[in-house]
Amino acid sequence: MHAQPALRKIVIFGVGLIGGSFALALRKAGAVGEVVGFGRSAATLEQARQLGILDHIGRDEAHEVDNADIVLVATPVAQMADIFARIAPHLGAHTLVTDGGSTKGDVVAAARANLGNKLEQFVPAHPIAGAEKSGPDAATAELYVGKRVVLTPLPENSPENVARVRKAWELCGANVSELTAAQHDEVFAAVSHLPHLLSFALVHDIAQRDNRDQLLSFAASGFRDFTRIAASSPEMWRDICLANREALLKEIMQYADELHGLYQALEQRDAAKLESVFSEARAVRSNWHPQ
Amino acid sequence: MHAQPALRKIVIFGVGLIGGSFALALRKAGAVGEVVGFGRSAATLEQARQLGILDHIGRDEAHEVDNADIVLVATPVAQMADIFARIAPHLGAHTLVTDGGSTKGDVVAAARANLGNKLEQFVPAHPIAGAEKSGPDAATAELYVGKRVVLTPLPENSPENVARVRKAWELCGANVSELTAAQHDEVFAAVSHLPHLLSFALVHDIAQRDNRDQLLSFAASGFRDFTRIAASSPEMWRDICLANREALLKEIMQYADELHGLYQALEQRDAAKLESVFSEARAVRSNWHPQ
Repeated sequence: MHAQPALRKIVIFGVGLIGGSFALALRKAGAVGEVVGFGRSAATLEQARQLGILDHIGRDEAHEVDNADIVLVATPVAQMADIFARIAPHLGAHTLVTDGGSTKGDVVAAARANLGNKLEQFVPAHPIAGAEKSGPDAATAELYVGKRVVLTPLPENSPENVARVRKAWELCGANVSELTAAQHDEVFAAVSHLPHLLSFALVHDIAQRDNRDQLLSFAASGFRDFTRIAASSPEMWRDICLANREALLKEIMQYADELHGLYQALEQRDAAKLESVFSEARAVRSNWHPQ
Repeated sequence: MHAQPALRKIVIFGVGLIGGSFALALRKAGAVGEVVGFGRSAATLEQARQLGILDHIGRDEAHEVDNADIVLVATPVAQMADIFARIAPHLGAHTLVTDGGSTKGDVVAAARANLGNKLEQFVPAHPIAGAEKSGPDAATAELYVGKRVVLTPLPENSPENVARVRKAWELCGANVSELTAAQHDEVFAAVSHLPHLLSFALVHDIAQRDNRDQLLSFAASGFRDFTRIAASSPEMWRDICLANREALLKEIMQYADELHGLYQALEQRDAAKLESVFSEARAVRSNWHPQ
């Protein structure tokens, strides 16, 4: 191919599953000329270079972000404020920033506090491609294919900037949609953060017991699938829960009410109520298929 | 093969996933001579015959159970009391009865009330091979391979009778273990019945909402796995919950306490507590692998 790639240069902060897969997907699409990476671990960066994720490991942030088309910040959310503050003065006029954070209200707040007059160049994103695996060796060019990426554009973003960030994620194979940051955080409190918390809670409940080895020895495929997400990163999920605290507290409360209703139905031997709840759940679950 | 099969004749009540797979597994092992089936649906029985599960469809229960080696009662638990009552007077001296029920206290009670002086010939069993699928077309010879079957022998059972029923399940490829019926029901309240109820509850909670379609459109693989068991049979799970009511009520109560603890930790922004609960859960879940 002699055609110019869609993106001449990208810079990635955090070359793990999310950042690494972004680079690999764009490479596979022939959509990127040069990939530069930054991160806190020299060993991880070197691993990413050897895996073909990076063309080279960045040394000077100011120099690299100055002429990049896209900067992807794919670190834990807790590190983003510092990164935004460091790169803001050096972002080129053409350079756009996006991120890979699972919560958006807190990322937007960090961007507002630290990107200054470059805020319009930041288009927040949440790629919905979580996995228990992490690190550059878990990254693949296919991670985003057919998966959703949610953009939560800011009022300050121009339509052109939103379109350019959307295009980058689409080049990775993703189905891109848009929500406000508040809508995003409410939706994911219900369909992601709450289930993770419930799954951790069940395993922790059983882990506390004297007969836990016996219990686990009889657990089967239902337990396996229900608790798969309880093997997720404790640090990441601690941060997600705290970042989306208000929406998640509401979800836990509502779920506790639901559970209380089932407890009462069972206590009263209300077979019709149990069957009706289970039937409604089954109908909805059977008709749903993840994207 | 000219050798006599281990089981000359088996009779199956309920030729669905559990009963059909028992027959197919014994056939594949060359361990059964003749398979006769009974059930409430003539169409299902005919389907089972055409699928090679049955040699023939039974007409006269008294005649068939008189000279069988094993009678497997694999119907919904609610139908078992009637079947026990009907077959008890006709069971041959050599004939043993086992079952496929997911709860054991209620099955044992039904047997005590209806098998009369044949009680010693009944060795209760719970094959842990649930699936959302059901019916004879879901049955396979491999369903039990490497899966657990829990026997809950009665004080009335002779060691020889327990050993013969154990052998039949082992011939299906299962790993057979033993618990009392009460132990069984407590263990499965924790590792199976509670997770099913929690999964139904989450989907029902979301199903009630005005924006449920939007919520489901953003749900991903974590939600998919957590809620897979919410597509299970509402009637079967209604019956299991009611059959194991006391143990399950205790489990719901304990889980609600666990959830309340996480709610408080989140409300108080107690990052250390959240991380410690999630870490303990992850450690236990990561080190566990289903049989």
